[in-house]
Amino acid sequence: MSRTDRAVAEELDRADPLAAYRDRFVAPEPDLIYLDGNSLGRLPKTTAAVLAEVVSEQWGRGLIRSWEHWIELAQRIGDEIAAGIVEAEPGEVVVSDSTTVNLYKLAVAALDARPGRRVLLCDDDNFPTDSYVFQALAAARDLELRVIPTDLDAGLSTADVIEALDTDVALASFSHVAYRSGAIADLAAVTAAAHDVGALTLWDLSHSGGSIPVPLRSAGVDLAVGCTYKYLCGGPGAPAYLYVRHELQDQLRQPIWGWFGQRDQFAMSGRYDAAPGITSFLVGTPPVLSMLGAREGVRVVADAGLEALRAKGMALTSYLVELADAWLVPLGFRLASPREAERRGSHVTLHHSDAWRICRALIDRRVVPDFRTPDRLRLGPAPLTTSYAEVWDGLDRLRRLVEDGVHESYADSRSRVT
Amino acid sequence: MSRTDRAVAEELDRADPLAAYRDRFVAPEPDLIYLDGNSLGRLPKTTAAVLAEVVSEQWGRGLIRSWEHWIELAQRIGDEIAAGIVEAEPGEVVVSDSTTVNLYKLAVAALDARPGRRVLLCDDDNFPTDSYVFQALAAARDLELRVIPTDLDAGLSTADVIEALDTDVALASFSHVAYRSGAIADLAAVTAAAHDVGALTLWDLSHSGGSIPVPLRSAGVDLAVGCTYKYLCGGPGAPAYLYVRHELQDQLRQPIWGWFGQRDQFAMSGRYDAAPGITSFLVGTPPVLSMLGAREGVRVVADAGLEALRAKGMALTSYLVELADAWLVPLGFRLASPREAERRGSHVTLHHSDAWRICRALIDRRVVPDFRTPDRLRLGPAPLTTSYAEVWDGLDRLRRLVEDGVHESYADSRSRVT
Repeated sequence: MSRTDRAVAEELDRADPLAAYRDRFVAPEPDLIYLDGNSLGRLPKTTAAVLAEVVSEQWGRGLIRSWEHWIELAQRIGDEIAAGIVEAEPGEVVVSDSTTVNLYKLAVAALDARPGRRVLLCDDDNFPTDSYVFQALAAARDLELRVIPTDLDAGLSTADVIEALDTDVALASFSHVAYRSGAIADLAAVTAAAHDVGALTLWDLSHSGGSIPVPLRSAGVDLAVGCTYKYLCGGPGAPAYLYVRHELQDQLRQPIWGWFGQRDQFAMSGRYDAAPGITSFLVGTPPVLSMLGAREGVRVVADAGLEALRAKGMALTSYLVELADAWLVPLGFRLASPREAERRGSHVTLHHSDAWRICRALIDRRVVPDFRTPDRLRLGPAPLTTSYAEVWDGLDRLRRLVEDGVHESYADSRSRVT
Repeated sequence: MSRTDRAVAEELDRADPLAAYRDRFVAPEPDLIYLDGNSLGRLPKTTAAVLAEVVSEQWGRGLIRSWEHWIELAQRIGDEIAAGIVEAEPGEVVVSDSTTVNLYKLAVAALDARPGRRVLLCDDDNFPTDSYVFQALAAARDLELRVIPTDLDAGLSTADVIEALDTDVALASFSHVAYRSGAIADLAAVTAAAHDVGALTLWDLSHSGGSIPVPLRSAGVDLAVGCTYKYLCGGPGAPAYLYVRHELQDQLRQPIWGWFGQRDQFAMSGRYDAAPGITSFLVGTPPVLSMLGAREGVRVVADAGLEALRAKGMALTSYLVELADAWLVPLGFRLASPREAERRGSHVTLHHSDAWRICRALIDRRVVPDFRTPDRLRLGPAPLTTSYAEVWDGLDRLRRLVEDGVHESYADSRSRVT
């Protein structure tokens, strides 16, 4: 039996200790191969039932009295994330707002805590919304935005960060897992280097949380934000989470003072008095339905466990790379992710000069990948919900499509966008 | 027949042109009298079905491809609000974030547009979260926060605003309908007075939008925010909306630059380039499920029509005041809202020295009001969903409870909070 036979995938699935988890998710459309769980995670079966109950019973029949169930959801789901998804203590994580708004809140809090320092350090491999937030802050506060040019296939270089750090840096902010390549940054080494010059760190966990272990406490991370709708399967646009390590919670003040961050909120005092702890990082009324979607996702991921997910993720992406080497490299593809499994998160990206047209044709062949400008095809086999056979089928369809030149009949509109 | 006979309420219900709309909402628990639609609006029957379909089909089976349905929801629901809820043009309203985050975004945009002016003008009858946002901005930017002391039963005085305005004022911000008293501020006169000194205006429509007409365009309002989970029946914590009049959209820049405010978002450019128009006031990924809840609520309210809702709202609150005069004033209650229906939104507030205990006892008698510190009982008969008979039943239970001294057996824990 050749390593590229489908029987290998079937054998790997039989041996997969997480295989049963796929039954805990709603099946997508028939014959659909979903390799984009890193953009929008699949729907846990419990979520539809929980939301129906909350809508009909808690909202519809219980009405305003149901806020007793909802008033501390942000903190409670945060504690579930701290217990099962990232390495944090109770009271260090809350669910709140969007990733972007949280980046803004924490970045301002950090900059205010380092008055006199005029540099915000980041790299050009961060997610665009992170970069936009930092550009806004640099413009508004007349800061230097120091941008490390990162190898977009290899990911953040700790040596480059050390080189760029000095005592002018107030805040250093990077993605834990790069959204293009899936490369994992060295959380502990980068954080330690930032601390050596007295800077704070703000990490974006959107592409790591729920797919690889995130050692926030042991790495000494100061601040972090993350997304619940990718690997955490929380639903489209489900609210984000943020982390502030205990030691900083009373020193840092986020800039958007609102009634959900107020001590004794329903006393309706006219004067803002920040609630103690992580609650002061909340702002306005949270979107309850979307929050409860997030909770169901967090629970099923936490139940599977990050160690098991990490093992499966490394095996699954390694298998994908093996098939790509055998089938796709001869067709003009080139790996755009780290080759070593330990350096990769749970997605794999490939370069191809015709990536945009291939992506369109592949979706029409019922395989869902992601295109990333200008020439990247991103394949995200989420470890909780993707089988080895799905990876085989997806890459088999991709291989045959390119071999047959099917993509060449597609309009090339998007490939000119750079 | 006495005016306080229940038969009067029944006759008013028979003549109510909006009566049929009550059937378009899910019934609350049996025998529950809901007088808190101004805090959390009731559940439209369509909402549960729409959410179930979106969860199971669009998310569960369509997965990432369903973003084609969701990507412009913020603008599309905004346009529905502009067409049916507030007086605005297409492209002047979007749904986004929480009310508090939107207040922050628009207040910063306004302050940045008036450099050199050092005063932010508000009053002490604004909702607490509005005040907290302004306190944060005054502290961060070293501004004077000039707070007009408003009569909390009578509402904002235009004369007081004119007195407080001068050419140091960058931004004047008030609630259109006061959250305690329900008093309506004079949108046009206050806005004109602010413009006379070159200041911008930011109105909070949370307690007016969906219950009374909001003449944003004809009053010349610059900026506004509003809530979708009160009179708009969008569901717990459903995202807020914001209004920026066309003429200002290219002059004003909100401070939280994010990928949903970016021109050609999925080109993933590293450099922020604000989208044209109202889209530049968006930030991060919106909570899709909660957004779709908001849309259903907006639709049913818009279908009823604001003119009809205003007529019903005035009649319903006038009826409530009439019963309160007859039954409750002799028991120590005193009106905490304007007596003239034209000066009131759709809720009525009463003072009573024992308001906290009465509120607790009333909830146990299956009537849901709101307590507002220190001595206010707030009654919100939402015009779309509340019958005259419910008002009669609610006030009847309230009257008998206080006559019998039932509340005196309740612990007085909260009444000491001031």
